[in-house]
Amino acid sequence: MPNRIALIGSGLIGCGWAVVFSRAGWDVALHDIKPGRAKQAVEDTKASLANLEACGFLESADACAQHLLPVGSLDEAIEGATFVQENVLETPEEKLAVFQELDRKVPGDIILGSSASTIPASKFTEHLDGRERCIIVHPCTPPYLVPLVEIVPAPWTAAATTQYCVDLMTDVNLVPILLHKEMYGFVLNRLQVALVNEAMHLVGQGVASPADVEKTLKNGLGLRWSFMGPFQTMDLAAPTGFKEYATKFGHSYRNMGKELGVAEEWSTDAIDQVDRFLRDEVPLDKLAERGQWRDRKLMKLASDTDN
Amino acid sequence: MPNRIALIGSGLIGCGWAVVFSRAGWDVALHDIKPGRAKQAVEDTKASLANLEACGFLESADACAQHLLPVGSLDEAIEGATFVQENVLETPEEKLAVFQELDRKVPGDIILGSSASTIPASKFTEHLDGRERCIIVHPCTPPYLVPLVEIVPAPWTAAATTQYCVDLMTDVNLVPILLHKEMYGFVLNRLQVALVNEAMHLVGQGVASPADVEKTLKNGLGLRWSFMGPFQTMDLAAPTGFKEYATKFGHSYRNMGKELGVAEEWSTDAIDQVDRFLRDEVPLDKLAERGQWRDRKLMKLASDTDN
Repeated sequence: MPNRIALIGSGLIGCGWAVVFSRAGWDVALHDIKPGRAKQAVEDTKASLANLEACGFLESADACAQHLLPVGSLDEAIEGATFVQENVLETPEEKLAVFQELDRKVPGDIILGSSASTIPASKFTEHLDGRERCIIVHPCTPPYLVPLVEIVPAPWTAAATTQYCVDLMTDVNLVPILLHKEMYGFVLNRLQVALVNEAMHLVGQGVASPADVEKTLKNGLGLRWSFMGPFQTMDLAAPTGFKEYATKFGHSYRNMGKELGVAEEWSTDAIDQVDRFLRDEVPLDKLAERGQWRDRKLMKLASDTDN
Repeated sequence: MPNRIALIGSGLIGCGWAVVFSRAGWDVALHDIKPGRAKQAVEDTKASLANLEACGFLESADACAQHLLPVGSLDEAIEGATFVQENVLETPEEKLAVFQELDRKVPGDIILGSSASTIPASKFTEHLDGRERCIIVHPCTPPYLVPLVEIVPAPWTAAATTQYCVDLMTDVNLVPILLHKEMYGFVLNRLQVALVNEAMHLVGQGVASPADVEKTLKNGLGLRWSFMGPFQTMDLAAPTGFKEYATKFGHSYRNMGKELGVAEEWSTDAIDQVDRFLRDEVPLDKLAERGQWRDRKLMKLASDTDN
């Protein structure tokens, strides 16, 4: 019997998982509470598979697509599943409702993952009988080209559950990281939020235009961070490495930290400025096309193996 | 007569400028108060030029190197200069001392740039006779491959000074952004600090290992930011674009912002953890070699012109 993943929720995130698992030879059952969505999700997934094949990143999109199975009910989705991944709305209430049902219906030896991007598993699994098999497995967008995935156990998650997910993610060609403590927003979104809030602050204060803030990443900070992360970047910015850097600049990082506008509400003016900039660059009806462009750029990055 | 830049201070930053301007056909006078440093800086610059040529990013390193002139005094450096760029230590006192001397000695029609990375020009130019010709021109490391450069006028900087620097940076193949207000740290370092402080916080709190935080950028956030910046990233993360994203997630960014550890001192434990991780990856005596690897990766990014 082949491995089979049950995807509970088949929006943008569910479709990303469908590509990842069908590419790895798993059968993929797609479910969504919205009528007709599971079938559409299969079509969206096929389009992504075709794009990967066209760029030489996949041998046969058709072979992958044969693994995709839209289903009409949660019961049908979990039938025969060897792993279950939930991808519903990011609220504790929605997550809780789905996990209660899954824990009741899915055989006890099957692990239940959640794609929650900010909410720790302890917020919606505490009172479940099978809480030790529940865990956060948070992917990026799109996971088949941005391979980082956060594994975040709750305090009661079994070590075997965690290990299974780390191994599974490696098997399906993702890059898992393991969090040792639950924290709202995990690692990825906390880092993203720190930077994005300051970006919105700078635009809101009239310091720089949205176009210029965008350039600061794509022509500056983001170039280095695409292959070495912030620590090695600092390591290479002082003749004798990071310790020297920390001694020289740690204090000024703290002082600057005090000045940042990170806890502010995004201003309406800043939102409008960013929106105008983005729509001037790419009209709304070209947004899907721009997503294909993004995927092509990511494929080029992925094809550079000089590490 | 060819254009000639006087570099006052010839450390890592001065050498970066030497590559940029010699590549653009400018004569480059290198000065440093440390005896012997200017000559060494010419050698360091030649090594970077050779690396660029070896990777096909430059026609002739030798032709560029012929523009490099180590000088023994500030007076000699500014002789015949058509532009002056200061790259001394990042303290207001050092900057002030150099700018006082430059303003006294350099003909009034020559613009005086500073490579300050966090300190606004108003902190060290207010009482100069020629303060309207003083301006921050803050490059990245290395500027010949990470082309963003921040132009930050003081309140009294002449509009013509600002425009000259924007045009000059474009001419030497960099990507200038213009700040409309002075702010400590400008744009690039404020964004970097926001993210790095949270990265140090997560390591210090034991949430994730330095290796895993590093992966979060290089296998996650940094991939997208190397070609599209944070705004377009959000634009592509909601079916109808940024406005929808802001409505859905703006509030949760604010809440998460409140939780971030950005104003903390870096803990000694976090510094030690990051240092151990980095030295396991690249021993100190291989750090310069790793810098060459970084430059090769940046050249690959630069050679992808699909925008």
